[in-house]
Amino acid sequence: MSFIETKPDSDFSIHNIPFGIISTPHNAAPRVATRIGDYAVDLSVLAQAGLFSSVVADAQGVFSQPTLNLFMSLGKPVWSATRKHIQKLLSASEATLRDNKDLLERAVFPINTVKTHLPANIGDYTDFYASKEHATNVGIMFRGKENALMPNWTHLPVGYHGRASSVVVSGTELKRPQGQRVVVKGEAPQFGPSLRMDCELEMAFLVGTGNNLGEPITIDNAKDHMFGVVLMNDWSARDIQAWEYVPLGPFLGKNFGTTVSAWVVTMDALEPFLVNGPVQDPKPMAYLAESTASAYDINLEVKLKPAESSKYSVISRSNLKYMYWSFAQQLTHHTVNGCNMRTGDLCGSGTISGPTEDSFGSMLELSWSGAKDIQLEDGITRKFLKDNDEMILAGWCEKDGVRVGFGECHGKILPARV
Amino acid sequence: MSFIETKPDSDFSIHNIPFGIISTPHNAAPRVATRIGDYAVDLSVLAQAGLFSSVVADAQGVFSQPTLNLFMSLGKPVWSATRKHIQKLLSASEATLRDNKDLLERAVFPINTVKTHLPANIGDYTDFYASKEHATNVGIMFRGKENALMPNWTHLPVGYHGRASSVVVSGTELKRPQGQRVVVKGEAPQFGPSLRMDCELEMAFLVGTGNNLGEPITIDNAKDHMFGVVLMNDWSARDIQAWEYVPLGPFLGKNFGTTVSAWVVTMDALEPFLVNGPVQDPKPMAYLAESTASAYDINLEVKLKPAESSKYSVISRSNLKYMYWSFAQQLTHHTVNGCNMRTGDLCGSGTISGPTEDSFGSMLELSWSGAKDIQLEDGITRKFLKDNDEMILAGWCEKDGVRVGFGECHGKILPARV
Ligand SMILES: [Ca+2]
Ligand SMILES: [Ca+2]
Ligand SMILES: [Mg+2]
Ligand SMILES: [Mg+2]
Ligand code: NI
Repeated sequence: MSFIETKPDSDFSIHNIPFGIISTPHNAAPRVATRIGDYAVDLSVLAQAGLFSSVVADAQGVFSQPTLNLFMSLGKPVWSATRKHIQKLLSASEATLRDNKDLLERAVFPINTVKTHLPANIGDYTDFYASKEHATNVGIMFRGKENALMPNWTHLPVGYHGRASSVVVSGTELKRPQGQRVVVKGEAPQFGPSLRMDCELEMAFLVGTGNNLGEPITIDNAKDHMFGVVLMNDWSARDIQAWEYVPLGPFLGKNFGTTVSAWVVTMDALEPFLVNGPVQDPKPMAYLAESTASAYDINLEVKLKPAESSKYSVISRSNLKYMYWSFAQQLTHHTVNGCNMRTGDLCGSGTISGPTEDSFGSMLELSWSGAKDIQLEDGITRKFLKDNDEMILAGWCEKDGVRVGFGECHGKILPARV
Repeated sequence: MSFIETKPDSDFSIHNIPFGIISTPHNAAPRVATRIGDYAVDLSVLAQAGLFSSVVADAQGVFSQPTLNLFMSLGKPVWSATRKHIQKLLSASEATLRDNKDLLERAVFPINTVKTHLPANIGDYTDFYASKEHATNVGIMFRGKENALMPNWTHLPVGYHGRASSVVVSGTELKRPQGQRVVVKGEAPQFGPSLRMDCELEMAFLVGTGNNLGEPITIDNAKDHMFGVVLMNDWSARDIQAWEYVPLGPFLGKNFGTTVSAWVVTMDALEPFLVNGPVQDPKPMAYLAESTASAYDINLEVKLKPAESSKYSVISRSNLKYMYWSFAQQLTHHTVNGCNMRTGDLCGSGTISGPTEDSFGSMLELSWSGAKDIQLEDGITRKFLKDNDEMILAGWCEKDGVRVGFGECHGKILPARV
């Protein structure tokens, strides 16, 4: 228990202790914070007061940075010690911070008074395609049933390079993209706003410590290179994507914006929720073979607020544990050819679709490529996103009365540029 | 003419004045330089002496950076004025630098005594696929004659996101990548070193000034956003690529390393060599329609030194003017959906294959997927690269006695990691 109030259903109990970047009305400089309940705790202020001298060298310099990169570059022993130290500082039985009214006033802010920023300087962003259900569903719609799942899919975690520049933090509004798309099947493409704006329910891990070019990360070490996990909405303009993506993959259908949640939940906080993933058949090659559980039991929800309403409707309930390929397998595969990862690199899971129709992670799947309506509250329906629709992704773990969650990943689609 | 000796066939006449990053034995700090003939000129030293006070605010700060990013962010008027100013400083008729022995000694270094570094901090790297000949050749080999050129290809410059972390400067040695590949057609994939290591002859432009998310760069403004051009070798492991690339594009077959030349030749220096590109049929959509010449007449050569020899053989002669889609069209298309470009972003042209067999830009094409030998000097042959083979890409423009070139883009393939 913390001396800072946390409601029983809060994503940010003392068992979480995520890291993020905030600024405040009286200090516009983005800096490192954690979150507990409905409060942000400014770690740069605590560091200035000397509270981290035992765990982080130059803590004040590290926590005054505008991104988590420097902190993440310090490595897992430092991340773990820091999180444990914060848990101690925030616990009800610890007087240091609890009884320092002045420090509390300067370091603890109601969450609705802070602005959150992109947590990392992302050097490279990669998106995987690791849900068998999603790959199969999309494959059927883009290429037909016979070519749905490509022969490589069960042998390796298929992934592709995404665009780092347009990764934005939860709350950012995005204009509907324009581009070339085929409006009438078989006819020439036309230019205009996307007519099939979609979301993708994903989670992504942030690389904490990387590897040198030419020196792969092995499967046994992979988890220790990961800093933490965020929710991710890989917005997708399906009509632009469908026209452009052969043969080199998605490009303008994706790179107009990708939204991540603001608070990075550490691998340490997620460890209690490790479970076995799906059975992999064929058995993965030796470099991808895991000896311990590596899937995470994280409940996920996709909520949509249509422009004409003030209510969010849940349109999908899924779980990260459905992913066929684990994060560790993704990271290992990514480096097996020598590719170098750097602190702050972002790796998306791919759309997290479950086995049932109400667990699909994209509107493309939920509306089956527009063949049927997605039912929202008050009789409103959608096939794809309309202008000014808003969307929230949510995720949380629960076990033995402990809850660790991700807050929300929120976005709004504005009308296309005129 | 410069007072610094430049041979008539030098790529780096006073008409060039490229920008790059150097360090020297007595000063390990990477900093901005230009090159003339066989000399590097340290711009940070000239700035310290006050020689740039009329053209760049805080020139000393700008030219002491370890990358060109800060300089590039200043915009085209500053780039142009700086280049002209350097031309004046280096001209035989100008006494300021010519007669300052002390300054010359501190600022001018024989090129073989300097170390060159990656010229930019590359936020995102995109690779296009803009040679019709290359796309057709590769299409035939990967998908058969009927599916060679996809229906979208003549409507838009197809491109995909590459990996920024593994872009390295000329001279860097790369280990042969390992990974999954199908060795016997129709059988299961095996793990091991790539058996089809290839090069791709490309050029790439560096984005000088970018655009905000949601605000496209128009075709008429595109050239002014580009800072300059480099040679690029997009090393490709064809067997890894062929197995992994469906449906989301190349990944581990490419991201183990991409080599760029050290000296960035500015768009200003290339302007005299603008020519009309291939006729585009169908006519590009309005947002891609150009009113002025936008192809560059740049001669290109691919040279290969097999491990068992000390001689380079020219294996291909091509020209950038063969590219179907111009750099301006590539940049415009890239942002038409609102995607934001940032200073330092790198955009590759795609493999530059010409119409004849001796102008193909990859060994995949030159050996027609391994069906025939590529003949080197002394009776040596190759289909793909063997361990310790070295490769040089070269490029230069020539017109009215003026030569502007790119130096070399050199790389060596080391044996795979054991
Ligand atoms: Ca995705
Ligand atoms: Ca290429
Ligand atoms: Mg996206
Ligand atoms: Mg490459
Ligand atoms: Ni508790």
